Amino acid sequence: MHTGLFIGRFQPFHLGHLDALKQALAENDRVIIGVGSAEENYTEDNPFTAGERFEMIESALSQEKIAREKYIIIPIRNIQNFSLWASHVKLLCPTFETLYTGSHMVKELFARHAPDIKIRDLKFNKKICATEIRTQILKGNKSWEKLVPKAITEYLKKHKAQARLKDIRLPRK
Amino acid sequence: MHTGLFIGRFQPFHLGHLDALKQALAENDRVIIGVGSAEENYTEDNPFTAGERFEMIESALSQEKIAREKYIIIPIRNIQNFSLWASHVKLLCPTFETLYTGSHMVKELFARHAPDIKIRDLKFNKKICATEIRTQILKGNKSWEKLVPKAITEYLKKHKAQARLKDIRLPRK
Amino acid sequence: MHTGLFIGRFQPFHLGHLDALKQALAENDRVIIGVGSAEENYTEDNPFTAGERFEMIESALSQEKIAREKYIIIPIRNIQNFSLWASHVKLLCPTFETLYTGSHMVKELFARHAPDIKIRDLKFNKKICATEIRTQILKGNKSWEKLVPKAITEYLKKHKAQARLKDIRLPRK
Amino acid sequence: MHTGLFIGRFQPFHLGHLDALKQALAENDRVIIGVGSAEENYTEDNPFTAGERFEMIESALSQEKIAREKYIIIPIRNIQNFSLWASHVKLLCPTFETLYTGSHMVKELFARHAPDIKIRDLKFNKKICATEIRTQILKGNKSWEKLVPKAITEYLKKHKAQARLKDIRLPRK
Amino acid sequence: MHTGLFIGRFQPFHLGHLDALKQALAENDRVIIGVGSAEENYTEDNPFTAGERFEMIESALSQEKIAREKYIIIPIRNIQNFSLWASHVKLLCPTFETLYTGSHMVKELFARHAPDIKIRDLKFNKKICATEIRTQILKGNKSWEKLVPKAITEYLKKHKAQARLKDIRLPRK
Amino acid sequence: MHTGLFIGRFQPFHLGHLDALKQALAENDRVIIGVGSAEENYTEDNPFTAGERFEMIESALSQEKIAREKYIIIPIRNIQNFSLWASHVKLLCPTFETLYTGSHMVKELFARHAPDIKIRDLKFNKKICATEIRTQILKGNKSWEKLVPKAITEYLKKHKAQARLKDIRLPRK
Repeated sequence: MHTGLFIGRFQPFHLGHLDALKQALAENDRVIIGVGSAEENYTEDNPFTAGERFEMIESALSQEKIAREKYIIIPIRNIQNFSLWASHVKLLCPTFETLYTGSHMVKELFARHAPDIKIRDLKFNKKICATEIRTQILKGNKSWEKLVPKAITEYLKKHKAQARLKDIRLPRK
Repeated sequence: MHTGLFIGRFQPFHLGHLDALKQALAENDRVIIGVGSAEENYTEDNPFTAGERFEMIESALSQEKIAREKYIIIPIRNIQNFSLWASHVKLLCPTFETLYTGSHMVKELFARHAPDIKIRDLKFNKKICATEIRTQILKGNKSWEKLVPKAITEYLKKHKAQARLKDIRLPRK
Repeated sequence: MHTGLFIGRFQPFHLGHLDALKQALAENDRVIIGVGSAEENYTEDNPFTAGERFEMIESALSQEKIAREKYIIIPIRNIQNFSLWASHVKLLCPTFETLYTGSHMVKELFARHAPDIKIRDLKFNKKICATEIRTQILKGNKSWEKLVPKAITEYLKKHKAQARLKDIRLPRK
Repeated sequence: MHTGLFIGRFQPFHLGHLDALKQALAENDRVIIGVGSAEENYTEDNPFTAGERFEMIESALSQEKIAREKYIIIPIRNIQNFSLWASHVKLLCPTFETLYTGSHMVKELFARHAPDIKIRDLKFNKKICATEIRTQILKGNKSWEKLVPKAITEYLKKHKAQARLKDIRLPRK
Repeated sequence: MHTGLFIGRFQPFHLGHLDALKQALAENDRVIIGVGSAEENYTEDNPFTAGERFEMIESALSQEKIAREKYIIIPIRNIQNFSLWASHVKLLCPTFETLYTGSHMVKELFARHAPDIKIRDLKFNKKICATEIRTQILKGNKSWEKLVPKAITEYLKKHKAQARLKDIRLPRK
Repeated sequence: MHTGLFIGRFQPFHLGHLDALKQALAENDRVIIGVGSAEENYTEDNPFTAGERFEMIESALSQEKIAREKYIIIPIRNIQNFSLWASHVKLLCPTFETLYTGSHMVKELFARHAPDIKIRDLKFNKKICATEIRTQILKGNKSWEKLVPKAITEYLKKHKAQARLKDIRLPRK
C-alpha cells in the first residue's frame, strides 16, 4: 500500500488545498492529511482549532465524494526545535513513503532530517492563499467564497468566522 | 450523526479494547479512538509510539472487517495540568457527544470539566490488562498471544516487542 | 458573596485600569485582579515581572484607600493553546461569577470556553494606553506621569524603568 | 513592613499548617502563602486545584478571624529545574525578607540560590501530615477530621473529596 | 584560574565576535563561549543548529591557532522567563567570574539577577553584524565573505547556507 | 578526525566512567562527553547541576593528565518524547560517528532513530554504580571514596554532598 503525507495548516482549507490533495490521492492508495500548528488557535495566523479544521476538511472531502478510507487526518503540534520536526511528524503518523507540501521549509526539513521519505512536487494554484482568504473574511468582502469549497463557506459562516477574526485582530488593552 | 469518543493508551491494543470498541460502535455512527499519552514512548508504561499504536489498531480493525469510515484515530498528548485535559481533548477532535473509557479518572475529569459530554459505561473484560500483557511479553511467555487480536501478535513479533521491553527495563548506568 | 475577575497585563497599571477596577468593585463584594502574561518580563510588551506588577497595583490601591479585603491579586501565566486559557484561569482562581476586561479576545475566549461566567462591560478610558505610556517612558518624556497613579510614577522612577526599557529595546548583537 | 513567605502544597491545609502560619504571622506584618505545585491537580499527591486550595486556606483563616490584610495567597507552579525554583518564586511574589517552610529541600534551595532571603524555623507539629490525611479520607475513616480546621472538613465533604481520591487511585485501563 | 563567559548567538560567528573573544581571552585563563538560543534553528534569526555553530566556532578558532584548552563551548537554550535566564546560564556552566557580551539586555539581566558576576565591556566592531551577513548571504552577494573568518566562509558554502536561508524566508503555504 | 560520543548522567563521575572513557579515547581522536538529564538537579537521581558535573569531570580528567583537546563536555537536557532524543543529541553536538554508553536504552534509541551512528561496546565495570555511591554518601559511609577519582572525593566533600542528599531525601511536608 502506498501512503502519502500531505501537510499544511489549513486555516482554512481552500480550493488550492483540495486540488493539490487530489493530485496526491491519484498517486497513492491513501493520504495522511497532517494538520500543522495543531495546538495553535485564536491567533491571526491560526484562528481555528485542530478540531474545527478536522471538521472543515472532512466536510469538504465528503462533498467531493472522496471515500473515507482514502484519507486520514492527524493533528500535529509545533515543536520549537525545527530540526526535530520531521522526526516528530514520523512518530505521530502511521508509516508513509512520500511527502507532499507547498512549504519549501517543510521540504528542506524532511530532506535533511528524514532522508528515507521521498518528496514529490504538486502543482499548487498560487493564486489561492489562506492568508488572503482570512483578510477578506475579516474585511467582510465576499470574494473569498469563490476560493474555498462550498462546505467550507457554510462552515465558516455558521461558526461566525468574521467575528472571531475581528476579536483576534483588535488590540489587547 | 452520532459520534463517540473511545479513549485509551492501547499499549498494546488487546481483545478487551476490541470488545469494548464494538459496543461503542454499536451505539454510534462512528467512533473517535483517542490514543492517549501520544508523545510518550520507550517507557515501561508506554513502550510504543503513537504511529505504531495507530498501525496496530488499524490492522486489528481491518482484520475484523470494521469499515474504515466507522472510526477515526486521533493521537492525544498528555498535559501536566489534568484539570485542563478534557478541554484539550475536545479541541483536538471533531465534535462528539459521548465518552467511553475504562478509566474512572477520565470519567471524573470529563464529568467535572466537560459537562456537555455524556458518559456511557461499557462492559470491560477485566481479565485482560495491557500491563499484564507487557509483563508476559517481557518474560518471553506466550500466554499473551491469546489476549490480543492476531494482527497484533504479528505486529508485535515483527517489531521485536520483547527486545524493546527488555532494553527499556534494564537499569540505566 | 459576589466575586468578579478583572484581567489585564498592567504593564504598567494606569489610571484607566484604576477607573475600570473601581467600576468592577462597585458591582462586587470583591474583585480578583488577574495579572496576565505573568511569567513574561524584560520584553518590550512585558517589561515588568509579576512580582513588580503586584507591588505596583497594591501601592496604587493603597493610595486610593481601597480596603485590602476588597481585592485579590493572582498571577496568571500564558499558555500557548488559547482555547484552553479560560479554563486555565478558572483553575488558578477562587470561584468568581463575572468577568471584566478591556480585551475583546479575552471576552471571546470566555464566551466560547467558559459559558458559565458572566461577561460585563466597563467604560474604559480609551485615551490611556499602556503601550503609549511605555513609549513615553522610553523617550524620556514626562507626559506619561499624568496617566498613572502617583504611586506608580514613584515606583517606576525608583525602579529605573527608563533604563530597563532602553536595554530591552536596544538591538541584541 | 515585614513580609514573610510561608510555602507549602496544602493538600489539604491542616491544623499543622495553621499553627505554623500563626507563628509566621506573629513575626511579620503580613505573610505571603505560596501554594506550591499550583498547576498539579487530580494526582495522588496533588488532588486539589490551585483555586480549590485558595478557597480552603481562605475559609480556614476567615474562621480563625485572621484579618484579610495579614496574608496574600499566590499560586506557584513547579518548574523542572529545581535550582531555578527559588528565583522563580521571588519573581512571582511581592518583595519578602523571610522564608518559612517545613521542607528541608525548600530551605536548601533558598539558602544556595537566594542568599538574600532569611530562613526562619517554625515549630511544626510533626504528628499532622497531609499524606496521612489523604489516606484516611480515601479509606473513609473519620479520624482525619480532627486534624484539619472545621472549615476544611466542610469544604472537603461538600466537594466530595473521598470520591475524587478514589477515582484518582483506581488503576487506569 | 580566571574564567570568563562570552555569550552570543553566533548566527554565524564573524570577525567582530573573533576580535571581541580575543580581548576576553587576553583577560582570562580561559573563556566559556555560551551559544545562546541553542535549540532554535531553521528560523530567520537562528538558521543554524547548535551543533553547526559549535563546528563553525571551533574551525575559526583552530585556524587562528587558539589553543583548545583556552575555551569551552556550551549550548544554552532560551527560557521564556527572562528574569530566570542569568541563573539558568550559571547552572549550565562551570564556575565563571566575568561576563562579556555585546547585548545590553544580557548585561542588565546579569546585573539584576546574578550580582556576583562581574560585567566587563569589550570593544565591539559595530560595523560587523550577523543580521546583515545573513541578508547578504540570502541575496547572493559576496560582500559578507570579508566579514567572517575564512573557515566560516568555507563552512557556510559547504553547508549551502544560501539555499537554507532561501527556504526559510519563502512564505509557508 | 574520529569523534566518539560518550553519554551518561555522571551523578557523580566514578572510576567506572573513567575506565570506560579511556577505552573510548583510545579509539578516537577525541570524545564528546554528553552530560544527560542536564537540567535536572536536586533530585534523588540527579542531585548535582550540569555545571557541577562539568567541574567534576574536568577535575578528574585533569588529574589523570588527559589533554584538554581530547574531550568536549556538552550538557544535554531530557526531552519527554524518547523517540526524538537521539536526533536531539545530534543537533546539540558537533559531528560524531560512534556512540559509547552503558545504557541499553540509549543504544536502542540510537539504533532505531539515528542509524548513521555506529554503536560500540565498552567493558563497563559493573561493580561500580552511581546509585550505590549516592546511597553510601547519604549514609555517611566512607566506602564510596574508593569508587571515584580522588578529585571527585574532594569535590563532593567541599560541596557538602552528604548534606544535600539528606535534604533531598527528607520528606516534603
